[in-house]
Amino acid sequence: MLKFEIVHVDSKTGARAGLIRNRGLVAQTPAFMTVGTQGTVKAISPRDLKEAGVEIVLANTYHLYLRPGAEIIAKAGGLAKFMSWEGLTLTDSGGFQIFSMADLTRIEREGVTFRSHLDGSLHFLSPEQVIEIQGKIGADIIMVLDECTGYPLSFERARRSADLTVEWARRSRKRFDGLDLGAKQGIFGIVQGSTYESLRRRCAEELIEIGFDGYAIGGLSVGEPKAAMFEMLAVTAEVLPWEQPRYLMGVGFPEDIVESVARGIDMFDCVMPTRNARNGSLFTSRGKVVVKNAIYAEDFRPVDPECDCYTCRTFSRAYLRHLFNAGELLAPYLATLHNVTFFQRVMREMRQAIMEDRFSEWRETFLSKVSSEEK
Amino acid sequence: MLKFEIVHVDSKTGARAGLIRNRGLVAQTPAFMTVGTQGTVKAISPRDLKEAGVEIVLANTYHLYLRPGAEIIAKAGGLAKFMSWEGLTLTDSGGFQIFSMADLTRIEREGVTFRSHLDGSLHFLSPEQVIEIQGKIGADIIMVLDECTGYPLSFERARRSADLTVEWARRSRKRFDGLDLGAKQGIFGIVQGSTYESLRRRCAEELIEIGFDGYAIGGLSVGEPKAAMFEMLAVTAEVLPWEQPRYLMGVGFPEDIVESVARGIDMFDCVMPTRNARNGSLFTSRGKVVVKNAIYAEDFRPVDPECDCYTCRTFSRAYLRHLFNAGELLAPYLATLHNVTFFQRVMREMRQAIMEDRFSEWRETFLSKVSSEEK
Repeated sequence: MLKFEIVHVDSKTGARAGLIRNRGLVAQTPAFMTVGTQGTVKAISPRDLKEAGVEIVLANTYHLYLRPGAEIIAKAGGLAKFMSWEGLTLTDSGGFQIFSMADLTRIEREGVTFRSHLDGSLHFLSPEQVIEIQGKIGADIIMVLDECTGYPLSFERARRSADLTVEWARRSRKRFDGLDLGAKQGIFGIVQGSTYESLRRRCAEELIEIGFDGYAIGGLSVGEPKAAMFEMLAVTAEVLPWEQPRYLMGVGFPEDIVESVARGIDMFDCVMPTRNARNGSLFTSRGKVVVKNAIYAEDFRPVDPECDCYTCRTFSRAYLRHLFNAGELLAPYLATLHNVTFFQRVMREMRQAIMEDRFSEWRETFLSKVSSEEK
Repeated sequence: MLKFEIVHVDSKTGARAGLIRNRGLVAQTPAFMTVGTQGTVKAISPRDLKEAGVEIVLANTYHLYLRPGAEIIAKAGGLAKFMSWEGLTLTDSGGFQIFSMADLTRIEREGVTFRSHLDGSLHFLSPEQVIEIQGKIGADIIMVLDECTGYPLSFERARRSADLTVEWARRSRKRFDGLDLGAKQGIFGIVQGSTYESLRRRCAEELIEIGFDGYAIGGLSVGEPKAAMFEMLAVTAEVLPWEQPRYLMGVGFPEDIVESVARGIDMFDCVMPTRNARNGSLFTSRGKVVVKNAIYAEDFRPVDPECDCYTCRTFSRAYLRHLFNAGELLAPYLATLHNVTFFQRVMREMRQAIMEDRFSEWRETFLSKVSSEEK
């Protein structure tokens, strides 16, 4: 059974250090969940993930539903076994992908109809079916189907969307209970409401009334000003039950993660470390290194001298540049390993700072370092 | 200084078990050199190579000369340091690539003129320059520039080509000595002569007169019948100095390697394990597994139950099939790791059989196993 425990709260900010547990496994929070869209974190192996300090991986229900299919994953013993990942897992509902990747043909109260981005085949999924699929995939944490909207959005449109999301959440919870999935999996609701304080608050309250194991905040980091994002975060976090985990979906930049932790968020996910790595963009303790650049052609220093990952312990910028220029498969491997390690180290250091009541000082130092561009 | 030592000779066949040493490093022979064309074995890291049992890696002078350039590799401290490979290295002369990949514009006694396959730029390389470049790249073993010809070839054409190869070898040796590269690197000549016994023998004798640290056999496995290849091998091996290493270039299939070892060959290289891996074709102790095939969709067994590589210890065929189908980067990584491990294990087992005077029995068992197709 999914358990969340708050271990310490930073006295100045309210930033929380906690633990998520299931199946005898544990993930420390604040947690950055590394994205493994199709049941694999692109370019690196489960043992690399462990080495990088990853404790929880997120996979996408939309992708896994289409390929290889939930049945095969169930037969393999669930997602973690299928991908040989000895850590916690979370599946999103697939909503975001249906709304962004698939050819969406219809949203109705009953559910969504869409065409696969792979072969154009037509699919209908109700919120209930999304729970059934995630039950088969068997991740430790599953998400309700929500309507994903963009920015800007009229109040009226945002209100209707938040209402639909709540209705779907209620039906999802019911199916989750009906299938008795709670012994093995936890279920999170998703707060919508765009940039409207009153909608966010109401949506959160209604979800809490239904009752979930945790609450995600969706529909942010979709183009709205940063200030609006942080305001919505603060408003929502205020309403959410203190003792349950809070998950900000799709964020993101290390500096945004730090600011969100300061506002009481516990969980994050984003493709940024892995996707940027594949483009040769590396996060370092002194800012970004775009390792393909010509200035690194004869730079025999490691990517990040402060990093202890295999890539930084072993290879030079000049070599990585060569690998990227030559289109070699080792390039995304080494870059991903570094970026994933970097994100996990930021989370670990941040947690340590919370534990020692010096989060504010740590945050200040961190933000001043990452804002500079490495030369 | 490059050293070769024969440790044991199989009493029935003359198959040899030996050791190649340089820079305090050692590679056991018979050795399969894993190909790292551009200064990286495609898809896997140096620590994966070590784990797979690789002791010597081959890189391509043509590719490294064009990108990143020999100067950068020299500044990095040589090829092994540049790619962070703690093992032996060999560079081919680039001849094969110039003749097969580049737009070859002219072959003269002086050297070859060609256009880069990367940007169409015009280059001229003499045999001497090829030695200078390989001196900068700094591999433990370097190869003379030879003319690479196809099959079939008229006797007259083969004779002229072998003569040119010998002339180039003489000039290469002279420049190698002039630059005093011998303290750090060994140099191999390459026997040509197509499928003509007399030419092969004469070419070998002339090269031996010049004197090299080892002798490669080139221009085989280019379309000639298998019988012709093994005949040329036997003829050439007979002439070559017993106490020096013999390298059959570009071979190949495990069964051909075994047959060539039986004829006194010590070293091999081929892109087959790495290239086939990237296409999802896996070598196993029971024959080939084309893991993309639909029959593996729900096959939760490892690729090769007899293999102890990370891939086989950890993942199922069903998962590998999913990775290949989904175009995931983890697919070539795991497949390459397996195939490279498989080839090294074959070499290790073969060597052990030679050491224990049971090579013939081992060879028979091995050949009967690999000839079947895994179901």
